[in-house]
Amino acid sequence: MTKKRIAILGSTGSIGTQALEVIAANPETFSVEVLTAQDNADLLIKQAATFLPREVVIGNKTLHDKVASALSGFPVKVYSGADALVSVVESETIDTVLTAMVGYAGLLPTIHAIRAGKDIALANKETLVVAGELIMNLAKEYKINIYPVDSEHSAIFQCLAGESENKIEKIILTASGGPFRGKDRTFLSSVTKQQALKHPNWAMGAKITIDSATLMNKGLEVIEAKWLFDLRASQIDVIVHPQSIVHSLVQFEDGSLKAQMGLPDMKLPIQYALHYPLRLKSDFPRFNFPDFPSLTFEKPDLETFRNLAVAYEVLEKGGNAACIINAANEIAVDAFLHDRIGFLEISDVIIDTLAKTEYIQNPTYSDYVQTNEAARRFASEMIPVKI
Amino acid sequence: MTKKRIAILGSTGSIGTQALEVIAANPETFSVEVLTAQDNADLLIKQAATFLPREVVIGNKTLHDKVASALSGFPVKVYSGADALVSVVESETIDTVLTAMVGYAGLLPTIHAIRAGKDIALANKETLVVAGELIMNLAKEYKINIYPVDSEHSAIFQCLAGESENKIEKIILTASGGPFRGKDRTFLSSVTKQQALKHPNWAMGAKITIDSATLMNKGLEVIEAKWLFDLRASQIDVIVHPQSIVHSLVQFEDGSLKAQMGLPDMKLPIQYALHYPLRLKSDFPRFNFPDFPSLTFEKPDLETFRNLAVAYEVLEKGGNAACIINAANEIAVDAFLHDRIGFLEISDVIIDTLAKTEYIQNPTYSDYVQTNEAARRFASEMIPVKI
Repeated sequence: MTKKRIAILGSTGSIGTQALEVIAANPETFSVEVLTAQDNADLLIKQAATFLPREVVIGNKTLHDKVASALSGFPVKVYSGADALVSVVESETIDTVLTAMVGYAGLLPTIHAIRAGKDIALANKETLVVAGELIMNLAKEYKINIYPVDSEHSAIFQCLAGESENKIEKIILTASGGPFRGKDRTFLSSVTKQQALKHPNWAMGAKITIDSATLMNKGLEVIEAKWLFDLRASQIDVIVHPQSIVHSLVQFEDGSLKAQMGLPDMKLPIQYALHYPLRLKSDFPRFNFPDFPSLTFEKPDLETFRNLAVAYEVLEKGGNAACIINAANEIAVDAFLHDRIGFLEISDVIIDTLAKTEYIQNPTYSDYVQTNEAARRFASEMIPVKI
Repeated sequence: MTKKRIAILGSTGSIGTQALEVIAANPETFSVEVLTAQDNADLLIKQAATFLPREVVIGNKTLHDKVASALSGFPVKVYSGADALVSVVESETIDTVLTAMVGYAGLLPTIHAIRAGKDIALANKETLVVAGELIMNLAKEYKINIYPVDSEHSAIFQCLAGESENKIEKIILTASGGPFRGKDRTFLSSVTKQQALKHPNWAMGAKITIDSATLMNKGLEVIEAKWLFDLRASQIDVIVHPQSIVHSLVQFEDGSLKAQMGLPDMKLPIQYALHYPLRLKSDFPRFNFPDFPSLTFEKPDLETFRNLAVAYEVLEKGGNAACIINAANEIAVDAFLHDRIGFLEISDVIIDTLAKTEYIQNPTYSDYVQTNEAARRFASEMIPVKI
């Protein structure tokens, strides 16, 4: 069997490192062609020395010499800078690109990878949030597959195996509810980033963990699901499921529901996306019903957690609206992580930015670029200067 | 589109009448070729006058004239007796045979249908319990498909769509626990048939309802699953799930679990079995999470409900052992329904019959026939004569 040749964009993050664990456990199945990182040169060097990719890219140019000299004894080419991050995916020796970087930055490399005919294992949901229509049209045009890595979308995708002739009535995305489930606005007005970073079930990067606490992550997933599975907003439900065992569900037009379940472990959806449609035997810990005698479900509180309501609103609105809230959210979360705004103000920044940024019904790629810049500027202007 | 031509064996029972509801709702998709019943001439006549099958069979010969004269004005041929029940499935105009009769009586017509090249929608689980190896070998030889109708096995079957290349690690059959879940032997020693017939979630025939109360139904399903999905006993788990929303689950070798869920409604698995792999739009009531805020799961109590333990025992033992306990169970349940033995004595009769009846490692069809007769005789001898 020929090995599947993988490029990992964002290999030093949470998804990237877990993807390398999956690859390390299946050396006959996968090879690592490309690894990239923005700033974490030390880990990138270590990963490169272990997996011997053909190429590595460090986004931060000032770290180029450090990486290059550390890897001088290895058969690994070293590049740096934003252009290299984008073009490195185009090599003929890559089969699948795992997009595991954070935020808007995922968009351009993903477009390049699709145009180069690579299948995408999509962990960077912001790519579809920002420019879902553009990306899905490109995927069709270049006849490539997009395999979701998000646990919820992987669950849907797994439930859709063998069901291509059957219509989806709706999907139900499960949400853990995050660390502040059941809390009211008074409580939330004074929570700290330390509290917000304590996710009850999933160990993830800082940005997505804050997005989980605000329910923005679920909002972004609703938008992502619309594009991945070609659904209307009314076909996408969200239910809060604090145990994070049922990862999401599909309801077909006969009324039958299929769910994908398991312990929360991103290695499973990563592995599924990299090796679809074949499952690989794993030693991941198994779910055991007696450990979870009760699985509970409750409606999300859209009045307290306004981001999810905003996400549905922009989904109905279409155009560049989702691009606007994604940009505003990136700025707002960063500001919260730097103690410059409070938890509830994250939604304020997003809602105000959405009102302020020009709406474009049928955006081109350059409209998205400009929208992203304008929304970031507006959002940044709302953040108080640190004292 | 050509209609799928259906024969329903046991059309007046719970599964049969619900199958006719499915067919009535999809007149462009299905046609009824054959209906059969053992004793319920009135309903058979009514069904025949509505669906105009090519042929009907009434098993009880004394009712032949009643059915024939009632249907004399209709283009429906009327037959009667055991031989007709068996041979009616062989007509060239049948595509799929739904085996919805009760108990051991399902075996011979199913064998005839397979030999005639018909796909089987299998609602009569006893066929696979009694002679699973023989039936599955015949299905392979005659290249026909067996589509499960039991909600649990349909759930597994739905979860396996698109997964034919992926190994099953194990399956988990859910059990409602029946009306006596959590009760002890003291309580069970005095329960009445009226109590046992009150199933909390499913409206079914009397025999299967008692089997649910004793957990024998789950035991028979474990054996059925072994044959349908080619599993070892150690790959089949049972978990009690009182809400009957999760209908069963498959765990693959990557650790991923898939579940099929929905409100308890047999029309869904019936429809799926009759029209696999395509789902048909339905107006069945939809499951709604807010109506079920908690789904609970607990281990079955094998010490109180011994039938399930016995089923695992005979599954390990193989040969004609499952045929023995099936026969003993049919006699014991009938005796319980006629107030001749108590609830706990059902297991006594089964366990004693298993000990008493000759074990055959590699039974032929005639061995099964003789085993069934011998086990019924032994079981009957244990039933006190009614005073």
